[in-house]
Amino acid sequence: MCKLLKTTIIGTGKVAKSLAGILCQKNMLYEVYGRNLDRALQIIPNNQVIKTTTSLDFSRSKSNAFIICVSDSSIAQVAQEIILPPQAILIHTSGAIDLDVLTNQKSNCAILYPIQTFTEKAIKTLENIPLLIEANNENTFRRVEKLAKSLSKRVFKTSQQERERLHIAAVFASNFTNRIIHAAQATLNHTNLPFDLLEPLIHQSINNALLQGAQKTLTGPAKRNDQITIDKHVSLLSLDPNIKALYQALTQYTLTTNQA
Amino acid sequence: MCKLLKTTIIGTGKVAKSLAGILCQKNMLYEVYGRNLDRALQIIPNNQVIKTTTSLDFSRSKSNAFIICVSDSSIAQVAQEIILPPQAILIHTSGAIDLDVLTNQKSNCAILYPIQTFTEKAIKTLENIPLLIEANNENTFRRVEKLAKSLSKRVFKTSQQERERLHIAAVFASNFTNRIIHAAQATLNHTNLPFDLLEPLIHQSINNALLQGAQKTLTGPAKRNDQITIDKHVSLLSLDPNIKALYQALTQYTLTTNQA
Repeated sequence: MCKLLKTTIIGTGKVAKSLAGILCQKNMLYEVYGRNLDRALQIIPNNQVIKTTTSLDFSRSKSNAFIICVSDSSIAQVAQEIILPPQAILIHTSGAIDLDVLTNQKSNCAILYPIQTFTEKAIKTLENIPLLIEANNENTFRRVEKLAKSLSKRVFKTSQQERERLHIAAVFASNFTNRIIHAAQATLNHTNLPFDLLEPLIHQSINNALLQGAQKTLTGPAKRNDQITIDKHVSLLSLDPNIKALYQALTQYTLTTNQA
Repeated sequence: MCKLLKTTIIGTGKVAKSLAGILCQKNMLYEVYGRNLDRALQIIPNNQVIKTTTSLDFSRSKSNAFIICVSDSSIAQVAQEIILPPQAILIHTSGAIDLDVLTNQKSNCAILYPIQTFTEKAIKTLENIPLLIEANNENTFRRVEKLAKSLSKRVFKTSQQERERLHIAAVFASNFTNRIIHAAQATLNHTNLPFDLLEPLIHQSINNALLQGAQKTLTGPAKRNDQITIDKHVSLLSLDPNIKALYQALTQYTLTTNQA
């Protein structure tokens, strides 16, 4: 058995903010790194005394897991510059960046990818959020697994290929559901109807698809192959070329997957 | 004040089934029409004695509101064939079909369009479901409004143009969110990961967009204009041409609407 990890958070953005609060609550946060000390202090919950630093030289740090929460494009540079204490693990939290960006630089590396979207409003718990782990050796995997299991009930070991597929699926599940709601909203811009008219429909449709299956609960013009309604909708959207192109692409996907 | 309407449901499909249960509960269902008497009986809740018929001649019926719940393509034919008692209102429930399909045949006509998706599993209440009304005269509107308000707290009068826009918005909100979940699911087919991994992410993304606004809570590669990740995803989807085309269309929509 390995002892619970003491963690350092590298970064002060949305993921860093949620993780700092959650790790702090579990008494597992040792320090926070930020290029700007004020921002580092801001992500630490009130009344908590946590070390902050603007230096990536952690050779004397008592922490043993360094969790990089910076933007994808900055992860490689942090991995290169950071100086770790012996035996420490270097972790990043991105679904999009491969593990070799870390292993090219350090010995014990892992990805700890939370399947969640983070906004400025910090998330209070990861208890029900799936955490995916990829590690470059078995000992590192076990140590990160222990960290992950102290945060979430749903911890999975993944291969690079699985994480890559999951990241694409997450783009659909999160970013693209967001754009569908945006398109629905934009369509109502031309009316006096309030947008929240659509909320019960959105929730019911999502629940139907998740609980009974997407294929079984599909409805609508493209499902019925109702070309008259499809043509009418496309014609009504002639002044909204972006929404029209998206409508046509989604209709095409519906027609194809409905036949399958 | 007009008395509460006694209703006849024309049809035995998903909408008919939910409406029959709800109207029955409120003691407002007088009879059910089905081409097949067994199917008509099946949509009536247990222990309720409701008239059933296979004839569209309602000249002697005591009902005064006839709610057509058949498929869109059959509404015109029902409107033509049905024989109504004096003063009765003819109603359909489709967002896709214009009112003139009814008014071409009968005097007092309305659309009562529930903004909800219906499956085989009957919905127990419309209390929080928006109901949109379009009618061809003021008296008919008031009578249908009274019926609608006895079913839902959210009743709106709409123009044809507004209903048309709303129907497109509803296709996005319902049918297309279903397809996004389908695509996310299909992407995970190639892995051993369970699909319900994505459920917390889907719920959080939907809630973020509905409560804080879609534009403010958008995240992901296209939002960041991260062409490296986008190219990698497109390349990984090369064996799934349908998902790939959908990914590209949604990415294009994201790039365009993110600049706006």
